Amino acid sequence: MSSSTGTVYRVTTFGESHGPGIGVVIDGCPANFELDLENIQHELKRRRPGQSKLTTPRNEPDEFEILSGFYNGKTLGTSLAFFVRNTDMKSTDYDRWSDVYRPSHADFTYHAKYTHRTPHGGGRASVRESIARVIAGSVAGQILKKELNLETIAWVDSVGNIDADGFQEPPLDRNAVDESPVRCHNPNASRRMTELIEQVKKDGDSVGGTIGVIVNHVPPGLGDPVFDKLEADLAKACLSIPACKGFESGSGFSGTRLRGSQHNDPFYLKPDQAKSPIPSVQTPTNFSGGIQGGISNGMPILLRLAFKPTATIRKNQNTVNEKGEEVILKAGGRHDPCVLPRAVPIVESMVNMVLMDAYLRQRALQPEWYKLIQKDY
Amino acid sequence: MSSSTGTVYRVTTFGESHGPGIGVVIDGCPANFELDLENIQHELKRRRPGQSKLTTPRNEPDEFEILSGFYNGKTLGTSLAFFVRNTDMKSTDYDRWSDVYRPSHADFTYHAKYTHRTPHGGGRASVRESIARVIAGSVAGQILKKELNLETIAWVDSVGNIDADGFQEPPLDRNAVDESPVRCHNPNASRRMTELIEQVKKDGDSVGGTIGVIVNHVPPGLGDPVFDKLEADLAKACLSIPACKGFESGSGFSGTRLRGSQHNDPFYLKPDQAKSPIPSVQTPTNFSGGIQGGISNGMPILLRLAFKPTATIRKNQNTVNEKGEEVILKAGGRHDPCVLPRAVPIVESMVNMVLMDAYLRQRALQPEWYKLIQKDY
Amino acid sequence: MSSSTGTVYRVTTFGESHGPGIGVVIDGCPANFELDLENIQHELKRRRPGQSKLTTPRNEPDEFEILSGFYNGKTLGTSLAFFVRNTDMKSTDYDRWSDVYRPSHADFTYHAKYTHRTPHGGGRASVRESIARVIAGSVAGQILKKELNLETIAWVDSVGNIDADGFQEPPLDRNAVDESPVRCHNPNASRRMTELIEQVKKDGDSVGGTIGVIVNHVPPGLGDPVFDKLEADLAKACLSIPACKGFESGSGFSGTRLRGSQHNDPFYLKPDQAKSPIPSVQTPTNFSGGIQGGISNGMPILLRLAFKPTATIRKNQNTVNEKGEEVILKAGGRHDPCVLPRAVPIVESMVNMVLMDAYLRQRALQPEWYKLIQKDY
Amino acid sequence: MSSSTGTVYRVTTFGESHGPGIGVVIDGCPANFELDLENIQHELKRRRPGQSKLTTPRNEPDEFEILSGFYNGKTLGTSLAFFVRNTDMKSTDYDRWSDVYRPSHADFTYHAKYTHRTPHGGGRASVRESIARVIAGSVAGQILKKELNLETIAWVDSVGNIDADGFQEPPLDRNAVDESPVRCHNPNASRRMTELIEQVKKDGDSVGGTIGVIVNHVPPGLGDPVFDKLEADLAKACLSIPACKGFESGSGFSGTRLRGSQHNDPFYLKPDQAKSPIPSVQTPTNFSGGIQGGISNGMPILLRLAFKPTATIRKNQNTVNEKGEEVILKAGGRHDPCVLPRAVPIVESMVNMVLMDAYLRQRALQPEWYKLIQKDY
Repeated sequence: MSSSTGTVYRVTTFGESHGPGIGVVIDGCPANFELDLENIQHELKRRRPGQSKLTTPRNEPDEFEILSGFYNGKTLGTSLAFFVRNTDMKSTDYDRWSDVYRPSHADFTYHAKYTHRTPHGGGRASVRESIARVIAGSVAGQILKKELNLETIAWVDSVGNIDADGFQEPPLDRNAVDESPVRCHNPNASRRMTELIEQVKKDGDSVGGTIGVIVNHVPPGLGDPVFDKLEADLAKACLSIPACKGFESGSGFSGTRLRGSQHNDPFYLKPDQAKSPIPSVQTPTNFSGGIQGGISNGMPILLRLAFKPTATIRKNQNTVNEKGEEVILKAGGRHDPCVLPRAVPIVESMVNMVLMDAYLRQRALQPEWYKLIQKDY
Repeated sequence: MSSSTGTVYRVTTFGESHGPGIGVVIDGCPANFELDLENIQHELKRRRPGQSKLTTPRNEPDEFEILSGFYNGKTLGTSLAFFVRNTDMKSTDYDRWSDVYRPSHADFTYHAKYTHRTPHGGGRASVRESIARVIAGSVAGQILKKELNLETIAWVDSVGNIDADGFQEPPLDRNAVDESPVRCHNPNASRRMTELIEQVKKDGDSVGGTIGVIVNHVPPGLGDPVFDKLEADLAKACLSIPACKGFESGSGFSGTRLRGSQHNDPFYLKPDQAKSPIPSVQTPTNFSGGIQGGISNGMPILLRLAFKPTATIRKNQNTVNEKGEEVILKAGGRHDPCVLPRAVPIVESMVNMVLMDAYLRQRALQPEWYKLIQKDY
Repeated sequence: MSSSTGTVYRVTTFGESHGPGIGVVIDGCPANFELDLENIQHELKRRRPGQSKLTTPRNEPDEFEILSGFYNGKTLGTSLAFFVRNTDMKSTDYDRWSDVYRPSHADFTYHAKYTHRTPHGGGRASVRESIARVIAGSVAGQILKKELNLETIAWVDSVGNIDADGFQEPPLDRNAVDESPVRCHNPNASRRMTELIEQVKKDGDSVGGTIGVIVNHVPPGLGDPVFDKLEADLAKACLSIPACKGFESGSGFSGTRLRGSQHNDPFYLKPDQAKSPIPSVQTPTNFSGGIQGGISNGMPILLRLAFKPTATIRKNQNTVNEKGEEVILKAGGRHDPCVLPRAVPIVESMVNMVLMDAYLRQRALQPEWYKLIQKDY
Repeated sequence: MSSSTGTVYRVTTFGESHGPGIGVVIDGCPANFELDLENIQHELKRRRPGQSKLTTPRNEPDEFEILSGFYNGKTLGTSLAFFVRNTDMKSTDYDRWSDVYRPSHADFTYHAKYTHRTPHGGGRASVRESIARVIAGSVAGQILKKELNLETIAWVDSVGNIDADGFQEPPLDRNAVDESPVRCHNPNASRRMTELIEQVKKDGDSVGGTIGVIVNHVPPGLGDPVFDKLEADLAKACLSIPACKGFESGSGFSGTRLRGSQHNDPFYLKPDQAKSPIPSVQTPTNFSGGIQGGISNGMPILLRLAFKPTATIRKNQNTVNEKGEEVILKAGGRHDPCVLPRAVPIVESMVNMVLMDAYLRQRALQPEWYKLIQKDY
């Protein structure tokens, strides 16, 4: 079950970092949608390591093959499937780790869970699995953009102690983010982040950070009561990304320090609205982060995610091996000092998958809803 | 779908705050378990409002009736169901709100989603639905305690700006938490929180805060790769609690400021261990919060949750009504200035439900695993 | 999981025959639907035993209480829940069976599965659980009737060796069925079935039979490829009814004796059709039973179900008890010599639940579809 | 959702008949199992067309590639994935059908559902998708055989009007079935079936039939109450196989003609049993087909399935095309006059997948159960 997610827009990923390739099955994609294959390839490229000197030199083209569900430029409505071959499998890189539990990796936990494990890198735990997520997220993003004008934009909001405070002035689009080598649209912060990452790389160390997300043009009414609240589904999706350790919606942790009279978002009417069954509202503040009672309210969705520093570093570390011996894990191998820039398209993909599923679930039950609320979200 | 959660330990809640009552169905509870009904009643009492002058005067006994799955003191293995009658339904309290969107409540979003809504309070969005969660969480907690010695303890870690820093010295058990009227085991912080909540109440206002969670004696191996990582399932469960806006696992947001060499948790052997197929390890630090690669590693699970200030306050507020008019919502009615103390048993329940499901899923696939790893977690 | 069914129209039943009552939770019911409560009560009455001398004298009014999801005559869109109290719990009837495995009942299998069981009747295995199914099926049926003009009609097609051959001339509506005390619209067969059931009752025995189903006005396009074919979902739903042991779609078993050239249903155009993106077709034969490739084709859906003779009889039977002793189960107690007439509304309910789920799933993905195909199905 | 099935043993298939290949993802396969890859290849070969002059000449080697979850001869516990390349894609064969609805195929229903379709054969509706099912079923079958000694054996029980009456003396193993070119262990029936199929082939026609299934050594306790009864899950799995139109469990339709006193299966003790918490029982008759109350009772499971004659024939047929014109579909192309022999391994695979899932679900909840009941089933 753990390889699948979503209820109507249902995504299943497959493959391993050191096997033949990575793929994805998408059940529940509407038929007749003109898929922009270049957009998918573009998003895969954004996810890819080795794009700048800041990231790991592992370099794979990540070209996808469509296995099913696509004909004449359009989705068939039956399940879409994509496959991306692995081309850079240096499993020898991993040989010396074969029986050692790398600290803060999944080596020990996989061994304890399955009582048996492969020495060849992370298997399903590898960040390479996120190729599949980016494909499914790009498909979802294209449909959401076309049908709702909805757009998810993520950026690197902090690296180590360098804060961009990006929510003060969120990026207008993904290009504004991509212009920065660290995917931070605040030029000053971007420059300092770049320097920090270079320094950390020289030190053979790694560094964490946070990612900010804004979703514009979300219509009110997405999400469900009780267990499948929109925030709950978003939190699960984001926390399933490797290295993600924290999630905030709207005011998040800082909002806990406010009083209700400060934190409540008063409703006002949107100007010049035509009479409609459901009034079109807005709030001058957005502490709710676009979600109230688990359901979108038409204001932008605001999320912030914490990513821990990568566990792979070029330093000796104390650890234990499978035989139950305390050993020293020697420094070595290639590594990515900061996953944040590459995590940006992965985060956008997970958010789009959740919103797509919520959109289709809402459409199943209230197909007329969008006509009743559609204004200018 | 939104009323159900879990894969093997599958919980479905039903009922509304202003209907006849609230109930829960539990599919996937092992047979032959001697259920401690007093413990369930005790947990319901912990959740109940009106226990002290700090909370809302709404006072309902919350006595449950067992509808199915229980015979002769033991679970039957078929679905358990419980029902708690509502006895204090003053729907007149809500009449004057009937067509007004209370700011930061679910009124507008429910209207936009369903294009129609009840004026009688929150329906399924009401915190009263959490009665069902507490019952299902208590059942799960009892089984986890007996079979794994696992115990989930939550506490109020901050209210407004008053921080207890409870992770420095986490509570040893729930009694240590319950001795405080605000459920904070740090006596100094508890006293100051109490004063703050009383002040906020006098002001007709509300205040938010955070909840800390420690889960002791978690065996390694719970949780799944990819989408159903233990942190992901925990995040979804916690974010589905009304008013929860943030989630951290282990070092969370503060860990993003560290370097990998500081943040990695080195492995050491547990002392005096017998030879076993899977070594028994520990880490002097626990930045991972007991979870690595989405799977428990045998160290305590550490979580921190953000709860926004309650939306119900006794102050006039600007808002909009269903007719599309801007109106002022007049202050009035009873309210709960701080939900944090009552949220403690709800949080414990959600965490226990997730861990129970993960435990049963693991047992399905690797029934021998617990013998191979069982030591002294 | 076993108490829930459906993906978007998601039904969860709860309660036991010898507990306080039976209930149902319906997630995924569209909002704003004017529910006909009398229709629900009427269907419950159709399911109820004790309506004629042909059935068991157990007589309960089966009045339902709405727990949630309903306001001002309309569905709220949030989960609907209903509860029906048990009022006729003579558990003493069952005492003498307490440790005996009644042949062809669920006593032994429940004991083997759960290693522990209640002596009080069937618990969740009782046909009384079907109250919940009939409520959920009636809600689905009302919506399908209003939105698609779709109607599911079941009838008793055979009892023992008496065949009504009802597919030759299917009933026009449920009234035509209900006019017969055995729910068979063929008057001659109805009379002979009645006589047979009375004889069987006198003999203290029971008898099986088959149920025919026709669903009229099914639009083409319901159902999914691969694992969730419409026939597959219908088969699961029907086989989950107690005592059901067989399922046929369209030509079923008798179709296996034909050649493809006889069995294929040639397509013709419906007369006088306007130009539309999808042609409107019909087939002079309907061996496919309205489903091709797992998806409805616009012709009536035709199903036939087998129900074994009730296991409860008034005759001595050889069996074994929990202590592992061979014993004789003495004749006695009330019993229903033929469940077929009562099964009719249960079958209709299960079929409607499946079609409702398929309809909502289809609407989620292709909301415009119904406009493109809508003609005169 | 329609590409996935199962709860704990969760199978997702992907790919199309005219794309690059067919694959399968298996989530929930226990770790450390020594997979017999030759057995998988053997089962694929059994499914493959072109093995004798009785079937279609389409001949593909169907060699699989393992994409994930396998290391050093053993399952890793993480998701298994397999891929089989298509090598014989003559899409030109299909060109002349491009806009014609082949009678009793999925052409029209796919068009009506998705409002758009591929002209290249059946896509996901193709029987080639069953490659994925056979792989997942072979993996399940190997584990069930090793852990429970359970074995599923299917055979062709009738072709057209030729009946083998195979339940009188079911085959002892799969070899007994495979010795016959039509997979029928009754030599006389096998010979006559072969002749019939050859004649039908000469006629350019097709013929249907039935498949019998016996599952030996099923422990009591598999399956769940209410909606996930073992028969219900088996029925869904079997009806999801292309061309399957009917399902019987135990006495099925013929049992409806019996009285309860004839049909009930009396319990007796198994001889020479040791004292155990759950008695070990048997029944001299097996009208229940090994399942009572939706749960296995330790007797062999008996199923019978109906397969309609293949829709592809070499005869002219009246039909309609996408433009809404009545046309004649000209005879031509290769075809398989009788799918029954090839359906045998597909049926076995679906049954094994269902039983594997039921076994893992049971183990999750009652891990000790197998020790309490294990005797000599």
